[in-house]
Amino acid sequence: MAGREAAKNVLRAQRIELPSWAFGNSGTRFKVFAQQGVPRDPFEKVADAAQVHAFTGVAPTVALHIPWDEVEDYGALGRAAADAGITLGTVNANVFQDDDYKLGSVTNPDPAVRRKALDHLFACIDVMDRTGSRDLKLWFSDGTNYPGQDDIRARQDRLAEALEAVYARLSADQRLILEYKLFEPAFYTTDVPDWGTSYAHCLRLGERAQVCVDTGHHAPGTNIEFIVAFLLREGKLGAFDFNSRFYADDDLIVGAADPFQLFRILFEVKQAGGLAADSGIAFMLDQCHNIEPKIPGQIRSVMNVQEATAKALLVDTEALSAAQAAGDVLGANGVLMDAFNTDVRPLLAELREEMGLDPDPMAAYARSGYAERIVADRVGGNQAGWGA
Amino acid sequence: MAGREAAKNVLRAQRIELPSWAFGNSGTRFKVFAQQGVPRDPFEKVADAAQVHAFTGVAPTVALHIPWDEVEDYGALGRAAADAGITLGTVNANVFQDDDYKLGSVTNPDPAVRRKALDHLFACIDVMDRTGSRDLKLWFSDGTNYPGQDDIRARQDRLAEALEAVYARLSADQRLILEYKLFEPAFYTTDVPDWGTSYAHCLRLGERAQVCVDTGHHAPGTNIEFIVAFLLREGKLGAFDFNSRFYADDDLIVGAADPFQLFRILFEVKQAGGLAADSGIAFMLDQCHNIEPKIPGQIRSVMNVQEATAKALLVDTEALSAAQAAGDVLGANGVLMDAFNTDVRPLLAELREEMGLDPDPMAAYARSGYAERIVADRVGGNQAGWGA
Amino acid sequence: MAGREAAKNVLRAQRIELPSWAFGNSGTRFKVFAQQGVPRDPFEKVADAAQVHAFTGVAPTVALHIPWDEVEDYGALGRAAADAGITLGTVNANVFQDDDYKLGSVTNPDPAVRRKALDHLFACIDVMDRTGSRDLKLWFSDGTNYPGQDDIRARQDRLAEALEAVYARLSADQRLILEYKLFEPAFYTTDVPDWGTSYAHCLRLGERAQVCVDTGHHAPGTNIEFIVAFLLREGKLGAFDFNSRFYADDDLIVGAADPFQLFRILFEVKQAGGLAADSGIAFMLDQCHNIEPKIPGQIRSVMNVQEATAKALLVDTEALSAAQAAGDVLGANGVLMDAFNTDVRPLLAELREEMGLDPDPMAAYARSGYAERIVADRVGGNQAGWGA
Amino acid sequence: MAGREAAKNVLRAQRIELPSWAFGNSGTRFKVFAQQGVPRDPFEKVADAAQVHAFTGVAPTVALHIPWDEVEDYGALGRAAADAGITLGTVNANVFQDDDYKLGSVTNPDPAVRRKALDHLFACIDVMDRTGSRDLKLWFSDGTNYPGQDDIRARQDRLAEALEAVYARLSADQRLILEYKLFEPAFYTTDVPDWGTSYAHCLRLGERAQVCVDTGHHAPGTNIEFIVAFLLREGKLGAFDFNSRFYADDDLIVGAADPFQLFRILFEVKQAGGLAADSGIAFMLDQCHNIEPKIPGQIRSVMNVQEATAKALLVDTEALSAAQAAGDVLGANGVLMDAFNTDVRPLLAELREEMGLDPDPMAAYARSGYAERIVADRVGGNQAGWGA
Repeated sequence: MAGREAAKNVLRAQRIELPSWAFGNSGTRFKVFAQQGVPRDPFEKVADAAQVHAFTGVAPTVALHIPWDEVEDYGALGRAAADAGITLGTVNANVFQDDDYKLGSVTNPDPAVRRKALDHLFACIDVMDRTGSRDLKLWFSDGTNYPGQDDIRARQDRLAEALEAVYARLSADQRLILEYKLFEPAFYTTDVPDWGTSYAHCLRLGERAQVCVDTGHHAPGTNIEFIVAFLLREGKLGAFDFNSRFYADDDLIVGAADPFQLFRILFEVKQAGGLAADSGIAFMLDQCHNIEPKIPGQIRSVMNVQEATAKALLVDTEALSAAQAAGDVLGANGVLMDAFNTDVRPLLAELREEMGLDPDPMAAYARSGYAERIVADRVGGNQAGWGA
Repeated sequence: MAGREAAKNVLRAQRIELPSWAFGNSGTRFKVFAQQGVPRDPFEKVADAAQVHAFTGVAPTVALHIPWDEVEDYGALGRAAADAGITLGTVNANVFQDDDYKLGSVTNPDPAVRRKALDHLFACIDVMDRTGSRDLKLWFSDGTNYPGQDDIRARQDRLAEALEAVYARLSADQRLILEYKLFEPAFYTTDVPDWGTSYAHCLRLGERAQVCVDTGHHAPGTNIEFIVAFLLREGKLGAFDFNSRFYADDDLIVGAADPFQLFRILFEVKQAGGLAADSGIAFMLDQCHNIEPKIPGQIRSVMNVQEATAKALLVDTEALSAAQAAGDVLGANGVLMDAFNTDVRPLLAELREEMGLDPDPMAAYARSGYAERIVADRVGGNQAGWGA
Repeated sequence: MAGREAAKNVLRAQRIELPSWAFGNSGTRFKVFAQQGVPRDPFEKVADAAQVHAFTGVAPTVALHIPWDEVEDYGALGRAAADAGITLGTVNANVFQDDDYKLGSVTNPDPAVRRKALDHLFACIDVMDRTGSRDLKLWFSDGTNYPGQDDIRARQDRLAEALEAVYARLSADQRLILEYKLFEPAFYTTDVPDWGTSYAHCLRLGERAQVCVDTGHHAPGTNIEFIVAFLLREGKLGAFDFNSRFYADDDLIVGAADPFQLFRILFEVKQAGGLAADSGIAFMLDQCHNIEPKIPGQIRSVMNVQEATAKALLVDTEALSAAQAAGDVLGANGVLMDAFNTDVRPLLAELREEMGLDPDPMAAYARSGYAERIVADRVGGNQAGWGA
Repeated sequence: MAGREAAKNVLRAQRIELPSWAFGNSGTRFKVFAQQGVPRDPFEKVADAAQVHAFTGVAPTVALHIPWDEVEDYGALGRAAADAGITLGTVNANVFQDDDYKLGSVTNPDPAVRRKALDHLFACIDVMDRTGSRDLKLWFSDGTNYPGQDDIRARQDRLAEALEAVYARLSADQRLILEYKLFEPAFYTTDVPDWGTSYAHCLRLGERAQVCVDTGHHAPGTNIEFIVAFLLREGKLGAFDFNSRFYADDDLIVGAADPFQLFRILFEVKQAGGLAADSGIAFMLDQCHNIEPKIPGQIRSVMNVQEATAKALLVDTEALSAAQAAGDVLGANGVLMDAFNTDVRPLLAELREEMGLDPDPMAAYARSGYAERIVADRVGGNQAGWGA
């Protein structure tokens, strides 16, 4: 078992980014269930995100989704965040919710629509300039629903052209993060369906183009930790979108469906030095709390990442390497499982107390009265949600 | 090759039911793209459905979704249908779009919500009494998102109780059709996830409880024609919801993703006598035309079912049985493929001409001017869609 | 957290059956890697199985595979088992390794082959009569590779006929356990592909026909604990074949791929009273240790089942029910996760010491010298393996 | 519909490579069913392959598997092939059937095993030098079965080292073709699991390193034609291994499971110029005829590829492009489907007659008496199979 203190030092410095949209209403195509107290604007989303940080101490940034989080004055939004103890993070570009995008955004067969989409991506960079964000996260819903609907290769050409234009517009300390997704909302082809496609485009673009691994965006049976290890070896893993899935892109709480997988992923990150503060990897949540309350859902998610990280840190890598080198299959597996089977909750409770936090963030938040306050205060107005 | 004339006789008598909701707007959780000319009420949906029948001749009924298709006067709706040359068909109960149903409808842990859901199911039977519908189709979105969220077995008890109450309420010439679905919108458990669950409940209920096979509701790799053959052998296949999928429940045009699979399914139906007019199997479309126009999408779907049926009818079953009995793997497979590889479009064109229809329904509809008419006429009001 | 002592009492009485074939060589179609010291006959397999029981204390029976484990004198085999501290258990019928079975066994289109297969099943019952085994486990490799190859429904008829004949031959205290499997070795249809098919046949046969759930035999995304809960509710879960999988039927060590899933399965078993000594559920391992040593592989497997069971027993079901009834999604999930996140290894070590065993079975076996002994002793002869 | 004559010209020049191992016995881990008349050495395999070419006219090369097809005198084997009307093609390296490779070949933790594997790869190049083969096809069974068993990243380092050494050894007109596979025989990680991994390695190696797409080696839901289109755009598609699958790597006859998918793949190939004689793409079959006779199985496979190619060639690409540019979803899909729904068997029969062949290769082979001859002649000796 590796050192508890060393583990705590890494855990203390860990940073998990929250998505602003996790605090708004979300749902499936069948129904979005509204929840009481949900934010009505980006300022209220920031306030809620700050609560998650207040109780966990490791979630000091909140990612924006543009245009969902468009405001007149980003300086004011940044100050509101700072006042609440957090900062604004990654900018996520949304080019999928305008009627023009029915057949795609940057890969649309219509050049006018492509131009419109590109202009929006440029506008996102303008937001970054104002918020001081490092990362532009690009996820495209682009794709087709029917064989023959469009030319697969021509769409790649259009995609490459748009990515080059965006990359050229970024400043030297900004990055382009390209996300991939197997399917949904497109049901036949997706223009960036897998890590290989994202990787190939990023390679062409240059060093500041990096791949984002959303843990819910793979085909059944895909070994995600292999992809993580491979991208880290290539220096091309820029970000995670954490969530969990049983079937498709379920966007459930990270670690809820397969905590062992989350542990294996974080172990590969750790092995490659990805937990170092300067690793350049953005660890973000990307979830939908369709039926559970939003803020506790995010707190629980942060805790799940912490627990998996703690276990990854406790792996006795010396014993592991020795068993691996010896071809001792059961022994090597046993070393890994020893760490996974360890109950790390006491260690994390201890860490929180050292950080001046309550050892039980869920209970502390529940006791805080914040939930009741927002239900009482946020009456009237339009609740934020996917699409607003 | 089996007889063309015999095939045409079956094809002439074939009946495919249309879903009223296919004519309204639909989409994914990311975006519903509005289309011009979409119906604004059930009467306009019925009018659109009648167009599909007018050009194909084999789609004379339209299924309703309650409450989406609630009207004050079902007599009037039925007369409107009759005037347009069709009739009202299956009633689909919707107990998933009220805020109360966040944790389930008939399996909700809260007895008050269960009671409300059951009352709605009873109300659907009242609608059936007025429309003269034979079938009550039940699909429940009920399930859970997280392990532990609710008691799997207790939910089965609640489900059984509700089904019994509904079954008891049906008249002797009405049927309960229970649909299953692997997942979505629930992401951990679904209360009726597979055919086995539906089958077991129907068996308990009695003869007029039957299983509905939605071709998009299975796990990857599931052999759907096996299920179809098995249920037919048990006398428990009540209905199809036809559509196609590449990934999850994509609800694409039937036959668009895997026309060979559709052929295999219809071949099993045919072998078991399921194409006979009195087979009791309801062949329905259940699709979402998210990006393509609705009426042509439905026409194309009907044609795809017809083509797969025609191929199934052309299988030389005598040669097939002989090869099967002889253990001639390649020979038996070859007999099946011969039928699949046959171009049946000329045969269907001929049939349509014999029926007094245009041999090319897609072109005939396009020429008819109906599309332009509804775009011009249906201005203002709220377009129908999932949820309305 | 439920009582530790109560948990220990259940764990002390737990019984896990070992498969004789896990001790022989196994592999994939690409290669079977031979291991030193592997048994050369059923007596040596029994001796190895006894080692697993000696170090774990909860694996006192070994299942046989006929004809792999055919011996002249089953009395002698039983006595050898008894001398080693274990007994003979379930009889598994093998009707898939004779050239005659190329197109199936009991569902073969050739009646002579069907007769031969049935005779073998009868012979298996004769073995049961001699060994005193309660359960006849039937897994059929029967199926087809190509569409059209055989008649899906006719094969069901043949299957039903064979099952009836076998069931009729069983004595009143013997059971028929019907296993299902999605695919492999058949690649298009499998004659018993899913739990529904097995369930429907068992229902027809009678009370002593029960379903076997092999945890590796499902389509991707299948919720196994739902099936377990459902079959338990119906009184039709007869046995488990435990193993784990990442992709297909990988037959890896149970709990190695997804320990959380194993825990969820055992929690459903426990909730339904399935851990009671008289539940009638046979908990069996069915694994292939292709690259790891066999005996430690089995010990580890037994321990994994014990750990998952211990966690299932520690779930605070009162708190769980309260949270479920209140619709507290995160709370209910949290109760379940609390148990899963608990490190139960100390509890199991304690239990072993109370049972007079070494608290660390893996280390104790390694120290015992048995592995070295069999390598030295078992030289010459033919190693047992799949097919022998 | 594009021109029939133009299509015939492409079809006349099409070349499909046969795998020598398709003529030997094969099976699953459960059983290899022996067939009468199966070859006993590489010369007999070559003779059988020549039969497939004799009746189809488009399969003039046979790929070798080393060491399965090792002979003393490759000149003699080449002459035997030439006498039979064909030539020797791709060399497939086999580093998975020696006991030393239990934990991997070129990625084995043991440097001595890695050295042995590399030496075998060099020996394969020696064979290529003697046979005049252009392509060295590398598929590695390397991977792990259990989390922690070995270091994912270290294995990539070892893989890269081996690939570099092999690539350096190739002559300027030889190519390295790197195949990927999701899983099997390794069940947790595979060292080259997907096209992205193969692509990244090939990119590093250089121009003569190319990716092989085996149509059976993907996760469920993977869009293979997207990968094909993408690799063609990157100039990195070197070869196909054609076969078909319903579940895992079933290695069934190409086009047997999803003929529409095969058509879509070949359409992408055609669109990118991949059907041109100088495209550099090797179109190979890689199948196992476990239950059907081998030679007719191969003939049927060749015909299936021809039929899919013919349909791909008949797509009216002008109409398709117009519909795509207009955003006409149904129209564009309709153009593609028109070609797929066309019965191309008459066109291929016509082509065969023009080539001096029987229009019905299956029937002509059956009449030829070859099957009866080899059954009579090939008595005694050891039948070839996987592993020999």
